[in-house]
Amino acid sequence: MKGNVIVGQSGGPTAVINSSLAGVFRTAIDRGANKVYGMRYGIQGLLDEKYVDLSDYIKNELDVEILKRTPSAFLGTCRYKLPAIHEDQDVYERIFEILDKLNIECFIYIGGNDSMDTIKKLSDYAILKGHPQKFVGVPKTIDNDLALTDHTPGFGSACKYIATSIKEVIRDGNGFSYNKQLVTIIEIMGRNAGWLTGAAALAKGEDCEGVDLIYLPEVAFDLEAFTEEVRELLKVKSTVFVAISEGIRLADGTYVSEAGGGSGYVDAFGHKQLTGSANYLASMINNELGCKTRAVEFSSLQRSASHLASRVDINEAFMVGGAAVKAADEGDSGKMVVIDRVSDDPYQSATGVYDVHKIANDEKLVPRNWINEKGTYVTNEFIDYVRPLIQGDYPCVMVNGLPRHLYLR
Amino acid sequence: MKGNVIVGQSGGPTAVINSSLAGVFRTAIDRGANKVYGMRYGIQGLLDEKYVDLSDYIKNELDVEILKRTPSAFLGTCRYKLPAIHEDQDVYERIFEILDKLNIECFIYIGGNDSMDTIKKLSDYAILKGHPQKFVGVPKTIDNDLALTDHTPGFGSACKYIATSIKEVIRDGNGFSYNKQLVTIIEIMGRNAGWLTGAAALAKGEDCEGVDLIYLPEVAFDLEAFTEEVRELLKVKSTVFVAISEGIRLADGTYVSEAGGGSGYVDAFGHKQLTGSANYLASMINNELGCKTRAVEFSSLQRSASHLASRVDINEAFMVGGAAVKAADEGDSGKMVVIDRVSDDPYQSATGVYDVHKIANDEKLVPRNWINEKGTYVTNEFIDYVRPLIQGDYPCVMVNGLPRHLYLR
Repeated sequence: MKGNVIVGQSGGPTAVINSSLAGVFRTAIDRGANKVYGMRYGIQGLLDEKYVDLSDYIKNELDVEILKRTPSAFLGTCRYKLPAIHEDQDVYERIFEILDKLNIECFIYIGGNDSMDTIKKLSDYAILKGHPQKFVGVPKTIDNDLALTDHTPGFGSACKYIATSIKEVIRDGNGFSYNKQLVTIIEIMGRNAGWLTGAAALAKGEDCEGVDLIYLPEVAFDLEAFTEEVRELLKVKSTVFVAISEGIRLADGTYVSEAGGGSGYVDAFGHKQLTGSANYLASMINNELGCKTRAVEFSSLQRSASHLASRVDINEAFMVGGAAVKAADEGDSGKMVVIDRVSDDPYQSATGVYDVHKIANDEKLVPRNWINEKGTYVTNEFIDYVRPLIQGDYPCVMVNGLPRHLYLR
Repeated sequence: MKGNVIVGQSGGPTAVINSSLAGVFRTAIDRGANKVYGMRYGIQGLLDEKYVDLSDYIKNELDVEILKRTPSAFLGTCRYKLPAIHEDQDVYERIFEILDKLNIECFIYIGGNDSMDTIKKLSDYAILKGHPQKFVGVPKTIDNDLALTDHTPGFGSACKYIATSIKEVIRDGNGFSYNKQLVTIIEIMGRNAGWLTGAAALAKGEDCEGVDLIYLPEVAFDLEAFTEEVRELLKVKSTVFVAISEGIRLADGTYVSEAGGGSGYVDAFGHKQLTGSANYLASMINNELGCKTRAVEFSSLQRSASHLASRVDINEAFMVGGAAVKAADEGDSGKMVVIDRVSDDPYQSATGVYDVHKIANDEKLVPRNWINEKGTYVTNEFIDYVRPLIQGDYPCVMVNGLPRHLYLR
């Protein structure tokens, strides 16, 4: 490589998105890149000429290790969709002007479906106008909804956080169960794809009874059938744990969080608020069955808890970052690096490269036959698919009692 | 020791309450106890003769280690207050009948203020009636609101979880901050004592700007002053992070969560619901200042996340458990073991024994002079007090990608 590399991060953060960044940086340096630039806040910041020289922040091997363990986008992220090429060429001209000025040879973008759309458009535009830069995407999303890749970096660590936290929530709930009934509803991220929620099944094992019910957005949710399931469970056990996707919808497409006739509630300021689905269902079960209920949301921690990241996930994220630089350096453009599962037992994976025109904006859902017939749990096939992705740990670099992160001031 | 020991757990769980249980078990065996019984669900279960022989579950040194890393009450817990002795002697007679039957010499109860009340009443009753059993309490609460002890086991680990999670939440929020404003309100447990919320200050360091504002229940909360603080901060930074105790109250004593005139909202089932204080304030700031807001609650994880327990805390919890057995075996009764801070730097602690009549039902609050004048942050004295308690880790025993717990079937 003779020129420079620029890398950006886009979309929702994950616990390992910076491990991909570290992989890009390391491979770019190894392959002789002169400079490795980082876009601040993705393509949106780049358009304002916001970028940094990553060597100013990643100064040694320890920094690389800490970057791998730093959650959320080190460079900052954005949600910015490029216009179609025929709609507005000015923005493209602006981008290529900056890339030329920085002597960029490889443009690497770490993100989800929208980011792959950016890679597609920029590589198309480069071909159209004869620009020499190569554009390669690195997959990233906790939602695991990208097509063609076996799974996405970020997904495994989110699963590990969710399964670990659910084990702790179940412990907490069961501790108080004497002569009492308690129904706990745990809400997990995922508007359309239930991959993360399905990972709740991993909590079950020799030392934990696990959750009793799992509801994914892939199957229409029935309030009455749900109430009956819980009622039946309470006849044989005192605590019931339910995992739901934030995106579960009724048969008519209404989100469960909007199901209450009132469609949420109007707060003291006159604003319509959506209570979460878990809050809604907890309230409903309390009303219908009279037992105590509890709603738990994991909020942004499920995508940012790098202190519980999986070793498989951090390593794969690093690997796809490096593979993207290699592909671009070898002349690939308009491509996304994917993870291929080479073997299940022992688990092995390798990178592949796919044409991004085949990938962009395709949402991969949980197959219906990986969910049981009633739509109340995932199958063993689902569990066998996810389990390898949560294996192993990267011990945090602890400083003064807390995990150390790499910080871009 | 010639007879047997019985141990129970009571009140809200912590990440290290089982480390105290492990300490009780180990020291009881070491001092020659024939049997170590565990009450199922505290004194409430004991009254129904629900107990186990702990040797059936803790079979080797590895089990002891796993028990130390198992969150929430291994034996189950209860919230049960004994009647005053003059009100109802039957319940006392029943308890002593069971203790006699089991040949109990030492009765150890791990819990908070209410549990120390139980120790007091049982030891008083034993003296009154000439029963030979000794009763000693082991402190436990994430709230750190017990008097006479420097701090309570469980508090340090909750602080470590909160500070770590806040670092991750701040990362997540800052990643998206380009050309946007975001105010995040983080709600932390604590109805009356702000110890845990104050631990939010630990997030600040070389690699994290920390939270901007901290509000404890010890100081009356002013909605207008709060809005002004946030408004001023947004003039100089795009993201603002605020930590609040669930128990913050207005000057007239109203909980902030009830402040909205409407006192919460009525849900679709006609139930009055209290939204959390964080939800209320996030909605208020969005309404007043127009910026995006986010509310985060750590829910039960802050008291059950043993995967992030502090080494100091697990070790001290184990130590106080053992010290309680030693005290009882040496003839103490009606006592609670406490932690004395021997030295700050290097941090050292030792156990002491106090008369439980001095302790019970006294709530220890954060001193006013450990909170700044405006009531918007804690002082360095507070931080210096808490920091040693989050140091060090106990690596989880990971099995198939998840922390292993000891399980009482």
